[in-house]
Amino acid sequence: MNKYSPSSSGPKTRVAIAGATGYAGIELVHLLARHPFVELVALFSSGRSGKSAPIGELVPALEGVSSLLCEPGSPQAVRKSGAQILLLATPHETSMEWTRELLAPGQPPLRIIDLSGAFRFQNAAVFEKWYNLPHTAPELLNEAVYGWPEKNRAIIPQARLVANPGCYATTATVALWPLLKSGLAKPEYIICDAKSGASGAGKGLRDDLHFVELEGNCKAYGVLTHRHTPEIAEQSGVPVEQFTFTPHLLPVSRGILATSYVALRNGAGEAEIESAYRDAYQGSPFVRFKGTRLPEINQVVHTNFCDVGFRLNAPAHQVVVVSCLDNLLKGAAGQAVQNLNCMIGCAEETALL
Amino acid sequence: MNKYSPSSSGPKTRVAIAGATGYAGIELVHLLARHPFVELVALFSSGRSGKSAPIGELVPALEGVSSLLCEPGSPQAVRKSGAQILLLATPHETSMEWTRELLAPGQPPLRIIDLSGAFRFQNAAVFEKWYNLPHTAPELLNEAVYGWPEKNRAIIPQARLVANPGCYATTATVALWPLLKSGLAKPEYIICDAKSGASGAGKGLRDDLHFVELEGNCKAYGVLTHRHTPEIAEQSGVPVEQFTFTPHLLPVSRGILATSYVALRNGAGEAEIESAYRDAYQGSPFVRFKGTRLPEINQVVHTNFCDVGFRLNAPAHQVVVVSCLDNLLKGAAGQAVQNLNCMIGCAEETALL
Amino acid sequence: MNKYSPSSSGPKTRVAIAGATGYAGIELVHLLARHPFVELVALFSSGRSGKSAPIGELVPALEGVSSLLCEPGSPQAVRKSGAQILLLATPHETSMEWTRELLAPGQPPLRIIDLSGAFRFQNAAVFEKWYNLPHTAPELLNEAVYGWPEKNRAIIPQARLVANPGCYATTATVALWPLLKSGLAKPEYIICDAKSGASGAGKGLRDDLHFVELEGNCKAYGVLTHRHTPEIAEQSGVPVEQFTFTPHLLPVSRGILATSYVALRNGAGEAEIESAYRDAYQGSPFVRFKGTRLPEINQVVHTNFCDVGFRLNAPAHQVVVVSCLDNLLKGAAGQAVQNLNCMIGCAEETALL
Amino acid sequence: MNKYSPSSSGPKTRVAIAGATGYAGIELVHLLARHPFVELVALFSSGRSGKSAPIGELVPALEGVSSLLCEPGSPQAVRKSGAQILLLATPHETSMEWTRELLAPGQPPLRIIDLSGAFRFQNAAVFEKWYNLPHTAPELLNEAVYGWPEKNRAIIPQARLVANPGCYATTATVALWPLLKSGLAKPEYIICDAKSGASGAGKGLRDDLHFVELEGNCKAYGVLTHRHTPEIAEQSGVPVEQFTFTPHLLPVSRGILATSYVALRNGAGEAEIESAYRDAYQGSPFVRFKGTRLPEINQVVHTNFCDVGFRLNAPAHQVVVVSCLDNLLKGAAGQAVQNLNCMIGCAEETALL
Repeated sequence: MNKYSPSSSGPKTRVAIAGATGYAGIELVHLLARHPFVELVALFSSGRSGKSAPIGELVPALEGVSSLLCEPGSPQAVRKSGAQILLLATPHETSMEWTRELLAPGQPPLRIIDLSGAFRFQNAAVFEKWYNLPHTAPELLNEAVYGWPEKNRAIIPQARLVANPGCYATTATVALWPLLKSGLAKPEYIICDAKSGASGAGKGLRDDLHFVELEGNCKAYGVLTHRHTPEIAEQSGVPVEQFTFTPHLLPVSRGILATSYVALRNGAGEAEIESAYRDAYQGSPFVRFKGTRLPEINQVVHTNFCDVGFRLNAPAHQVVVVSCLDNLLKGAAGQAVQNLNCMIGCAEETALL
Repeated sequence: MNKYSPSSSGPKTRVAIAGATGYAGIELVHLLARHPFVELVALFSSGRSGKSAPIGELVPALEGVSSLLCEPGSPQAVRKSGAQILLLATPHETSMEWTRELLAPGQPPLRIIDLSGAFRFQNAAVFEKWYNLPHTAPELLNEAVYGWPEKNRAIIPQARLVANPGCYATTATVALWPLLKSGLAKPEYIICDAKSGASGAGKGLRDDLHFVELEGNCKAYGVLTHRHTPEIAEQSGVPVEQFTFTPHLLPVSRGILATSYVALRNGAGEAEIESAYRDAYQGSPFVRFKGTRLPEINQVVHTNFCDVGFRLNAPAHQVVVVSCLDNLLKGAAGQAVQNLNCMIGCAEETALL
Repeated sequence: MNKYSPSSSGPKTRVAIAGATGYAGIELVHLLARHPFVELVALFSSGRSGKSAPIGELVPALEGVSSLLCEPGSPQAVRKSGAQILLLATPHETSMEWTRELLAPGQPPLRIIDLSGAFRFQNAAVFEKWYNLPHTAPELLNEAVYGWPEKNRAIIPQARLVANPGCYATTATVALWPLLKSGLAKPEYIICDAKSGASGAGKGLRDDLHFVELEGNCKAYGVLTHRHTPEIAEQSGVPVEQFTFTPHLLPVSRGILATSYVALRNGAGEAEIESAYRDAYQGSPFVRFKGTRLPEINQVVHTNFCDVGFRLNAPAHQVVVVSCLDNLLKGAAGQAVQNLNCMIGCAEETALL
Repeated sequence: MNKYSPSSSGPKTRVAIAGATGYAGIELVHLLARHPFVELVALFSSGRSGKSAPIGELVPALEGVSSLLCEPGSPQAVRKSGAQILLLATPHETSMEWTRELLAPGQPPLRIIDLSGAFRFQNAAVFEKWYNLPHTAPELLNEAVYGWPEKNRAIIPQARLVANPGCYATTATVALWPLLKSGLAKPEYIICDAKSGASGAGKGLRDDLHFVELEGNCKAYGVLTHRHTPEIAEQSGVPVEQFTFTPHLLPVSRGILATSYVALRNGAGEAEIESAYRDAYQGSPFVRFKGTRLPEINQVVHTNFCDVGFRLNAPAHQVVVVSCLDNLLKGAAGQAVQNLNCMIGCAEETALL
């Protein structure tokens, strides 16, 4: 029994969103505005001006979708809003600071889904090394639940603090975890060559995200140093020092496609691989295992699905796995709502199809 | 006889480029690095650091194309370079300031092709009104020649200061000028609905040029207030207060397409319209008049051509004219080289096909 | 009282879709799969093979969204499906043929929303002239209701046959109708310069829709001859022979932006224009009138909104109006669902936010 | 001494192009129209109509660039044209057939540069297996020279038949060859994850090249079966059965970027890797080795450069190499002209900067 005992037949759950004008935040507003069991009670954004305005003025696409005011925000404002669940689509630093304050002993009850990287590792040192930031709320790492419902849907319902996975991390882990969990794969020298659209980098202005620079372009970046590397390794069961993760920037707005190269143990054939994926994702409505058909970004974009397929190179004892998702939905806001659905006890698909 | 008597058989003309790391400047380096009668002697850029570096380090695409140093630049540095012709791909303010100093009485001989808007109007007040800037070199406006070779190739060879036309201006004027010059068009209530790629706005970072904002997008901007409005009106022979110019931003890097709507005087039919364009552009290798076939951006991009075609709405006494060009070539750097070719007395097509 | 008396509290309305694998059809499946008052009972597609298959096999993006079989289809199959409402996202010829047979006297009751151009004109001759096709069901033209809820929401609930508007037509009519209805505009010499994404042309393979041809491109097409011209004219109240409609192809998948140029009668100022739009669209949740802010495709794409804004050129007695929408939603499938909502008596926004 | 003794100071070399209206053919016309030592004498295209027309009518972008007729073509027509060098940008079958006939004993002297895959392998069986086509001119395989100037510039000048490399093959081989040639790399289990624009697939209409399908998309294709796999393996010195080549389709028109993963022998550090590339490409003006800076498609597109850079994963004894080029230039037409320059004895860069 879920100790928070929310119910889809009772009153709606009151939800607040911080970072509502960023790319993930805008998706959260879209999804939750039509969620039958949720009442959006507050939107926050550090914005550029520090002023409050209807969200439809700050984000014209949201006019007519939500008429809420979007305010500068603070932990105090969250408490005042009466929110039962807070979604943080904020920078790592803000997430750590607000979470520490709001979940401190003696505070009124509140549950948090954090979309930043702040609470994804059990070990603060891993965070500090890869994010090059001090961790200011390490006492919460032990309590935080990694919000990947495909793996953790048994424990998310009771969680007070859910760390929503990274977009690359979800894409790669959907591909790698079943092979490692099942023992079919050798964990050494796994390579993941990932390609992402530009919204993953957020709204900040950068030379390489200028339209003229990115249209028609493709480049690798963050090779061997990207922050999602240890997250993928930890969640998939791969030794991080032997894992090669190579992100590339694609000239698309949304979507990630990851091509993973995995050495197989003797005896692993197509049937064993198929079984590993079917076992792993049975009962997971948002992972579509496609067998030997390979997925494409345009088949998942604007949805919460993660598609995965493979090709076996039998003589080389190697499998090529392709997985993809929409980085703003299954890679961020959609997965957060999927976690929220787990937390309030309604169907995982609610508001996501 | 051209008083500057440059010759394609003699020594090469020494040319310097200011603003060499901007979009138009990069094109100038590409074009002039392979120009048989030009020696590039200096590249300048205000850059971000104020340091000198080989152009190929600042603009990786130019590695192997030119090995020149690119330096911060100043009028003094131009003089020191020994350049005979200076191309200014700089902001309006810089163009005015450098030109005033370099063309002041008593200075060594130098010819300038300015790609900014500084010297395109005879009347400083027009510039000041539409550009919202004081004109700091009004004494040179009378001398400046509007560098549109299709109209002014007779006077460009003798010019000391050439004002290279605006990108929208060239596109629209190629369409409108023949109809007005020939008397076929009524000058009242002409409409030009123009669509441009993002490089026209330059390299500066702007929210609306972020890849995620512009991919898949189209919007009008600068409606009734765009700076090229009076330039088009003046060059085409249209009263500016009755001319409606509506620029739109396209999700492409390069190219402008303008659709113009012009009321015709009685009696103007297809034959008369065809004659007007053929007369206007006879001997102009870079305007391709296509009759009633309509041009497309992809047929001109990466070339110095401006294509133009029309459709007659006979019952409504109206003609729809479509014209297009590459905003960085015929709309900027290519036209500048075409002007340079006129100035040094070689074939207009040199280095441009 | 609606004579069909559907009710959102009673059993769900049974709906079939023909043309389910085309771009508009796919959107219909997406929208209706999550519609709380609709039960999808049948999907039809002429497809390439003539075989039946789960829709998720034919359209991988729909796997997990609907598990219905998609079959070749026929009027008989529609009757057998038990559908109460049929959505036709089919070619004009198929729409005429199926509608004639299914709505013939003596047939079981059925209501049809047709997304083709077949039933948009009262006069068969107009259809035959602009579509260059014989009209094979002219007896139904009188009964057909033009399915633009913003104008006709009073009569759509009783309609048996609804002609869903064209995508360009909705975009342009949202802009023009209020100005003409209010008498502010002169109906003569109105110009509409429209820009559309490629999905408007459907899935058929064409040279000019090849990625390499369209990326980076923009071109005018169908100038003075496009089929939506008389539809816009008729619905807006503009004499077709003096109306100039110029569609352009944009390098985007979805979205239409129309820039309309309208001469005003003396005395029409900003306040009068604002009033005309506010009067026309009061109570219309899907038209967002933005005053003098101008809309952009990226603010409406993937939504059912049509945005509209204007700029007044007071000295020239002219107004420039910009309107835009997603051609597959408010321009096709979304508007069809909005019509369906009117027909079954639920809120217009149902399943559309 | 080159036995064909062409000379850049003598008369121009007469060149014909077959397949002049395809994407590679169009680039050949562009490049050769401005080549100072070449006279274009004939253009051929199977076209759609079988009729002759000026190339500028068939390809509007070429109007004003070349005024040659483009004709249906045949070996007889090639002979009649008086061409000394024939460039075949034709399907594999046409290339085999025409080459066999034109280079048969007793025929007048002619040299051929073939851009198809027909003559890239010494062993007809490799071609037949991977291309799934019978080889109809196997007697010429021994004579054919693989036209990769960076490796074979010593033997290309004497060649009668040059097999121009595949676009993926050039990209990958630039990255892999120096590592294998120098002995730094282990040849086993090399992975090349390549990403290509759409023009590599040619002008043929295909569902997955429809603009709406490809915009915003990315997908793998031809995994483990792509035809360039054995070409890369053979030219780089990698055992084909252990080589994993995974091409992906990018939503761009031009450009290929390949990310290669190579295991290193003990002791290979950054300095050794740098040396291997510098040794391999010394004197090669079109390979820009960038050290540990990584290349991007937009830095090579519309040029004949191939850029290559690397990152070392020292603890894993692995190197990640990124290489890229413009598939229509260094990957096809540009490389063909580079080969032609070698064949006629002029500077490799002629007409290519």
